[in-house]
Amino acid sequence: MLDVCLLGTGGMMPLPYRWLSALMLRYNGSNILMDCGEGTQVTMKMLGWSMKAIDVICLTHYHGDHVGGLPGLLLTIGNADRKESITIIGPKGLERVVNGLRVIAPELPYKLNLIEIQDVFQSFQFGNYKIETFKLDHSVLCYGYNVVIDRKGKFLVEKAQALGLPTHYWGRLQNGETITYQEKNITPDMILGPERKGLKVTYCTDTRPVKRIVEYAKGADLFVCEGTYGEDEDKEKAYQKKHMTFSESATLAKEAQVKTLWLTHFSPSLVKPKECLHNATHIFKNTVVGKERMKKVLKFDD
Amino acid sequence: MLDVCLLGTGGMMPLPYRWLSALMLRYNGSNILMDCGEGTQVTMKMLGWSMKAIDVICLTHYHGDHVGGLPGLLLTIGNADRKESITIIGPKGLERVVNGLRVIAPELPYKLNLIEIQDVFQSFQFGNYKIETFKLDHSVLCYGYNVVIDRKGKFLVEKAQALGLPTHYWGRLQNGETITYQEKNITPDMILGPERKGLKVTYCTDTRPVKRIVEYAKGADLFVCEGTYGEDEDKEKAYQKKHMTFSESATLAKEAQVKTLWLTHFSPSLVKPKECLHNATHIFKNTVVGKERMKKVLKFDD
Repeated sequence: MLDVCLLGTGGMMPLPYRWLSALMLRYNGSNILMDCGEGTQVTMKMLGWSMKAIDVICLTHYHGDHVGGLPGLLLTIGNADRKESITIIGPKGLERVVNGLRVIAPELPYKLNLIEIQDVFQSFQFGNYKIETFKLDHSVLCYGYNVVIDRKGKFLVEKAQALGLPTHYWGRLQNGETITYQEKNITPDMILGPERKGLKVTYCTDTRPVKRIVEYAKGADLFVCEGTYGEDEDKEKAYQKKHMTFSESATLAKEAQVKTLWLTHFSPSLVKPKECLHNATHIFKNTVVGKERMKKVLKFDD
Repeated sequence: MLDVCLLGTGGMMPLPYRWLSALMLRYNGSNILMDCGEGTQVTMKMLGWSMKAIDVICLTHYHGDHVGGLPGLLLTIGNADRKESITIIGPKGLERVVNGLRVIAPELPYKLNLIEIQDVFQSFQFGNYKIETFKLDHSVLCYGYNVVIDRKGKFLVEKAQALGLPTHYWGRLQNGETITYQEKNITPDMILGPERKGLKVTYCTDTRPVKRIVEYAKGADLFVCEGTYGEDEDKEKAYQKKHMTFSESATLAKEAQVKTLWLTHFSPSLVKPKECLHNATHIFKNTVVGKERMKKVLKFDD
């Protein structure tokens, strides 16, 4: 079960009724945060999911509205007495940015493990989930992220029995271990069925609509994507500012054949984004206009 | 007329119902901000006073809860297209802190004029108001601030007439200019009555109660002071963390003979500060427990 919550939906600046774009995920006791603009810790507090359990923070880029809340969040997690290190992933310049901001958070009771993205696409394994990152097209270096939960094949009891394997080996094989039994190596694939569909959440902001997004968001259960402007007539503005309109995001969702699209990162000028929903749904039906602390529980298919 | 508004009342971390301590003042078209924790721009937006008109930002110290909102505010003021420079006053290290935080706000359409405080007491004149700063006693270098509006004496028509001064000189003398008339130097004091009581607002956080506060808050019309802990039984905690209890703040207010005390900078553990008000009022009657966007208009006596 993967819990997802959209912490905020705003671009550019926080507003009294709108927090800055950030996404929180929760899987198996480990929390993941995507972006951390000014005030993210407040909407997170409203949500009630543990800040102390944040193991990974993924930064898309270093514009203030996506990272300004980082030092405050790190301090608050420190006040909650976390001791385990936190990993921060971000574009080149990560060390410079984090060290700059840490001028007001110099002492933390835990370590930061900084990973600067080096390639157009990279994948990182964290325990039982994977974080993938891929380059977007914004005015500064910017990356999208996938959180991927792979799912092994079914454990085939009849195969295990046919090999004469005692039951105390079963769990180890299920967990991916290769074991030696009666001088023979038994690998997991020998007793597991074909890999099953896992879960995938894609987070994409800020960017122009590029083909790479379709490629990496392919088949996502949830596609959280920027829709800075609601109306098609803002296409020129979106082009110039390296953002997207609702219809551009919906087109990506359609091409990537995702299950659900959540729109976020609304321009402060877009006061009532819901009124523009039809600009997306006529292209991709299963579109939802993001709202603060909107949640979704993703479950495996069967 | 000096308008004062308490933007937030929280210490340590912003909470869903409580913004971090900051004070905004407005005099004659010029706005002054004291402290700028994470989210200050949001509560300021709720208040509705112009961010673009902020000419001076006074920072008490560099703990995250007093300065984390600075880069976001500077960006938002930039987006409002301010061109005039902004002055930031703060303890030693100001340049290091502002430059660190500006890693996410590198480009602004206006200049920053940084003034590092050098002495235990300093005074700065800005047009028709004065900002005074004095050293407090916190776990890091920290300063309190006064905003002072001096008020000249009354213009004495009979004296001007006795000197035979034509009326077109009157305004210049009232504005402090010395003029030459019939080969004689006429100074303002020759036609003005004795200086009258002006206005003074004192902002004091974070600190232990030290004598210097009584000295510099003397006679303030409004004394905005930290009261991190409400109960006397927290005195030991206050002592260790270099903060104050309500009764300690009230004692300062009494000794400084201020008109009104506003308590602020409440610990997150102090959920209902109003319930502790009596701990202050039995020492200093005119105490008010601070509340988000509480306002006061200060007027000259007559």
